Amino acid sequence: MLNIGIIGAGRIGKVHSESITYHVKDATVVAIADPFMNDETKAWAEGLGIPKISKDYHEILNDAAVDAVLICSSTDTHADISIEAIKAGKHVFCEKPISQDLAKIKEVMEALKGSNVKFQVGFNRRFDHNFEAVRSAVAEGKIGDVHIVKITSRDPDAPPIEYVKVSGGMFLDMTIHDFDMVRYLSGSDVEEVYANGTCLVNPAIKDAGDIDTAIITMKLANGALAVIDNSRKADYGYDQRAEVFGSKGQVAVTNDSASTAVISTNSGVTGEKPLYFFLERYMASFSKEVSLFVKACLNNEAVPVDINDGLQPVLIAKAAKKSLEEGRPVKLSEITF
Amino acid sequence: MLNIGIIGAGRIGKVHSESITYHVKDATVVAIADPFMNDETKAWAEGLGIPKISKDYHEILNDAAVDAVLICSSTDTHADISIEAIKAGKHVFCEKPISQDLAKIKEVMEALKGSNVKFQVGFNRRFDHNFEAVRSAVAEGKIGDVHIVKITSRDPDAPPIEYVKVSGGMFLDMTIHDFDMVRYLSGSDVEEVYANGTCLVNPAIKDAGDIDTAIITMKLANGALAVIDNSRKADYGYDQRAEVFGSKGQVAVTNDSASTAVISTNSGVTGEKPLYFFLERYMASFSKEVSLFVKACLNNEAVPVDINDGLQPVLIAKAAKKSLEEGRPVKLSEITF
Amino acid sequence: MLNIGIIGAGRIGKVHSESITYHVKDATVVAIADPFMNDETKAWAEGLGIPKISKDYHEILNDAAVDAVLICSSTDTHADISIEAIKAGKHVFCEKPISQDLAKIKEVMEALKGSNVKFQVGFNRRFDHNFEAVRSAVAEGKIGDVHIVKITSRDPDAPPIEYVKVSGGMFLDMTIHDFDMVRYLSGSDVEEVYANGTCLVNPAIKDAGDIDTAIITMKLANGALAVIDNSRKADYGYDQRAEVFGSKGQVAVTNDSASTAVISTNSGVTGEKPLYFFLERYMASFSKEVSLFVKACLNNEAVPVDINDGLQPVLIAKAAKKSLEEGRPVKLSEITF
Amino acid sequence: MLNIGIIGAGRIGKVHSESITYHVKDATVVAIADPFMNDETKAWAEGLGIPKISKDYHEILNDAAVDAVLICSSTDTHADISIEAIKAGKHVFCEKPISQDLAKIKEVMEALKGSNVKFQVGFNRRFDHNFEAVRSAVAEGKIGDVHIVKITSRDPDAPPIEYVKVSGGMFLDMTIHDFDMVRYLSGSDVEEVYANGTCLVNPAIKDAGDIDTAIITMKLANGALAVIDNSRKADYGYDQRAEVFGSKGQVAVTNDSASTAVISTNSGVTGEKPLYFFLERYMASFSKEVSLFVKACLNNEAVPVDINDGLQPVLIAKAAKKSLEEGRPVKLSEITF
Repeated sequence: MLNIGIIGAGRIGKVHSESITYHVKDATVVAIADPFMNDETKAWAEGLGIPKISKDYHEILNDAAVDAVLICSSTDTHADISIEAIKAGKHVFCEKPISQDLAKIKEVMEALKGSNVKFQVGFNRRFDHNFEAVRSAVAEGKIGDVHIVKITSRDPDAPPIEYVKVSGGMFLDMTIHDFDMVRYLSGSDVEEVYANGTCLVNPAIKDAGDIDTAIITMKLANGALAVIDNSRKADYGYDQRAEVFGSKGQVAVTNDSASTAVISTNSGVTGEKPLYFFLERYMASFSKEVSLFVKACLNNEAVPVDINDGLQPVLIAKAAKKSLEEGRPVKLSEITF
Repeated sequence: MLNIGIIGAGRIGKVHSESITYHVKDATVVAIADPFMNDETKAWAEGLGIPKISKDYHEILNDAAVDAVLICSSTDTHADISIEAIKAGKHVFCEKPISQDLAKIKEVMEALKGSNVKFQVGFNRRFDHNFEAVRSAVAEGKIGDVHIVKITSRDPDAPPIEYVKVSGGMFLDMTIHDFDMVRYLSGSDVEEVYANGTCLVNPAIKDAGDIDTAIITMKLANGALAVIDNSRKADYGYDQRAEVFGSKGQVAVTNDSASTAVISTNSGVTGEKPLYFFLERYMASFSKEVSLFVKACLNNEAVPVDINDGLQPVLIAKAAKKSLEEGRPVKLSEITF
Repeated sequence: MLNIGIIGAGRIGKVHSESITYHVKDATVVAIADPFMNDETKAWAEGLGIPKISKDYHEILNDAAVDAVLICSSTDTHADISIEAIKAGKHVFCEKPISQDLAKIKEVMEALKGSNVKFQVGFNRRFDHNFEAVRSAVAEGKIGDVHIVKITSRDPDAPPIEYVKVSGGMFLDMTIHDFDMVRYLSGSDVEEVYANGTCLVNPAIKDAGDIDTAIITMKLANGALAVIDNSRKADYGYDQRAEVFGSKGQVAVTNDSASTAVISTNSGVTGEKPLYFFLERYMASFSKEVSLFVKACLNNEAVPVDINDGLQPVLIAKAAKKSLEEGRPVKLSEITF
Repeated sequence: MLNIGIIGAGRIGKVHSESITYHVKDATVVAIADPFMNDETKAWAEGLGIPKISKDYHEILNDAAVDAVLICSSTDTHADISIEAIKAGKHVFCEKPISQDLAKIKEVMEALKGSNVKFQVGFNRRFDHNFEAVRSAVAEGKIGDVHIVKITSRDPDAPPIEYVKVSGGMFLDMTIHDFDMVRYLSGSDVEEVYANGTCLVNPAIKDAGDIDTAIITMKLANGALAVIDNSRKADYGYDQRAEVFGSKGQVAVTNDSASTAVISTNSGVTGEKPLYFFLERYMASFSKEVSLFVKACLNNEAVPVDINDGLQPVLIAKAAKKSLEEGRPVKLSEITF
């Protein structure tokens, strides 16, 4: 049994706490900490049976009974807390991105050197049933050599402008999942990026210096090509699709919806919209990624998403940003790390 | 080259004339006759290049240059004209049903005995791309032994009451195609029928002594079961589907529509309605059935839908009608023939 | 918080225990009893944190702390234990069917008279996301008046012959869910049944006096028609579909599968098979039905599936059996109750 | 009635001759010319009832009875014959592309100035039922303002190397249809192109100086973004899809196939592959584009695909080629015309 401490009791910290309690075998949440811990959150944590509730995550790091931590705090704290946890000998599951600052990621990598700590990054979509099915088909050679990877990723609505301003930009905030997906589905690193981006959804996003619509193309190390299209607002809901085309065929996944119901009337033949957003669409992936983290910790196995998997999408996002700014394709090797 | 005379220049006579002219190789329409031939129809026939246009079909039967006739006249004349044509040595393609009167069908069968005349019945749906695909899958053993045949057949709108009154009832007028489809898809005769029928679409149909909604179940000679569901009015259009389930799996076909377009909006994910009615849905089947008739005539081969195939659905319809009247399953052997 | 005792720790008892523990708010499993309680099951129950584990369900009925029981024992004990539980003042959630013996169901109904006990029957499929979507569309009038209800229900494989022998026959064992579904989706009672049944999957089932393939048609009290097709073995997996056709259109649901992945190769365009069987397909419905039972108990509301809903499918199954035996349509009023 | 002369009796010349004869009202093929006219082609033309058959297209241009010509000769002759035809006062339907040489297109444009000749370019896919449905949805505002256009266009197999060598490159030979489609579906011109291209299908294509796999992104004049992905070989067949995403939703079309048949077995749920190639997929579009050309000629209306529509895709293809060579986005304004 792995004893887990949760650092950060915001939305994603709560999701992980509940999914571990109800769905992850061989793991227990033994502690949770959040600087803004209030009565409501405390009651919620008690309801889940979490014995140790505090405002200071050091209480978790200093607790010898804690084997591993989930870092669900704000993005800018991920790297520093990771380093502290590594030094305290705790296995670390760190929410994505490790950092928007490459130097910080480097520090975490340094801290990991020589340690026996497991370090996993929270790219949960890899554990979604649909994307796993695509990856399996590719890995089993069902479509032959990979030629083209296509990802459609559109949110149901743009985030608040205040969030946009501190998000690090759409590529680091939203597309980062899709950059990871390109690597996961293709089984290859990315070598070069060209980004087209614009602001068509909300002019306030442009005023905030960001974009809301983009098409990003990539050249992969294995010779294949990839493309992602993004929008911050798809009126029909969360659009999460992927295709991988290869020498022997194609595998594609489309959206999940609440039911298979199709209503045929004089107006047409109408099915349901996609599931609303990531909590509906990807809920099962959260327990699956942690289950595999737990398994890796308990059996001393490799984690399924390691620190390099955490680093690469940040590098791609940086290259995409540079491409957008300079209006030219940018190689990942141009990004100083 | 087969010289064809068309007897009857109503809707279906026109459909056949045009499809032979434009789509059937090795055949020419050399004559057309209709007692109600008017200037408009004459102009249409001339436009098609049909050289001989008359009011009297005997001019066709007496024309030595005519090899074959398509009988597209009103249903009550099919059998008598068939017999005259057989006696005149013309190959016969007769629109369905041969007759609503079993004694008349018997007379046609008698007339055919000893003759070299080809006789095909116009069950065109057998030549529809979708139903052919089902039949191929069954015949090739892809689904193993047939266990269950399911047919959904619903019209987009009920016919006029005046038509209902002379139609012979829904089973002989509409379901007869589905009875044929059960035989075609299963490759088996029908042994027993039980019919549930009611009037839910238009009370005037009930007043006319008919039904507009039905579920008919059948026991087949090969041991399989079959079911047809019918409605005279599907608000979303012409619903023409079939499934055959067997020991190794299932083959199913759904409706055709005008395009594959799917529009996703805040209201749902909406595709097109089925093609409106039989002229849209089954147009290609009309030229295909005649092409095969022409081939059978020219090469002295068996026709794909012979007189027994024309008889059986009438027997099934009679049994269904009796079942509905008597509230019990009726064997085909109970129908006097 | 509702304290629940589980009577019967077989497959379905375990499913309910786990789903209550992990997914049902406001309820706790406080006791479980099974005459065959062994070490393995005991360890499992302890792992779930169930405090009271015994071989005798009377310990549950006699426990004042228990508010409600789930009767998950063998079918032949459902009615008697229900009556004991009612007399003990416990709310009852009884797995389907209440009994295969109508007299026993009558006894339970008698026992309920004048009591304040809630009594719910375990027709879980009503709480499946797909069937709920069909029911909602019908109830909201989206398809107008109901004309035709169609249910396809096929198991992935036939049960062992030993099970078949004691199952009460396919109609009472398997089709009973579909009879309930006809009532649920249509919002109407069934008045008359005609059953075609045969043995095409496994001759040993015939030897055991049962059938494995059936088409059952029904006349409903609201004037609509219904049809169910059943097979004990669909080689492609658990086939669970439904359609309701009405004056304004149709609503249909198809199967769920493990992912939306479609692989296109030289061999065709291939999607996944349906989810394997009821535990995969209907898992979420088990927690939902119990959640609503808990809500009804705590708030003194009507249960969503009451004892009449438990009785009716048994009556329909009896009528279907009689129809099959006598080769004629049978009215429910013919079944002595 | 429009009298048409066909210049070029190769594959596409034959397709047009047959589709005009059988499907285009108000038009007749009165002459056909091909320098390689042989006995077989002559017999075919006679079978269609074409009265005038020659080796020299000047016989068509000099024939006062000819109202219009379809230029179906080899690409390098399109422009010169167009100019001759314009000077002869014949309406011109010219197969795509007008020329691979922009100077030649300019000459045609000059020749058209002041003439009353109709000039249409053969971008037939605009008249495909699926793409028309997408365009209609966009034009009717069903998806709001256009944000993203996505086109997938993959051939079932790579052309012979000898063809590749003289094709002008994949962008001018194959992608040119997709460039036209971007303009047609979006209703906007293209301003900038960035092309990723590689050779993954057949190394001999690389040796011939061409590519076989590409992803091309575009910035449109209306502010939207577009992307095309191409492959010379999709093992599952001709993949022709499009999506347009906008402020209010998305419209998407997928492939047509020979039937809707779906076979469910132990191996999966398998539908048919796409229709094999452009003759199967786009046959109906050939008669439709010519019908509209005929209508424009007879009624002195604007043609649906004018010379600018013929020019723009060549400009985009040139920009794409330059982008690929120089590894940077290229504006259409950089292409000298």
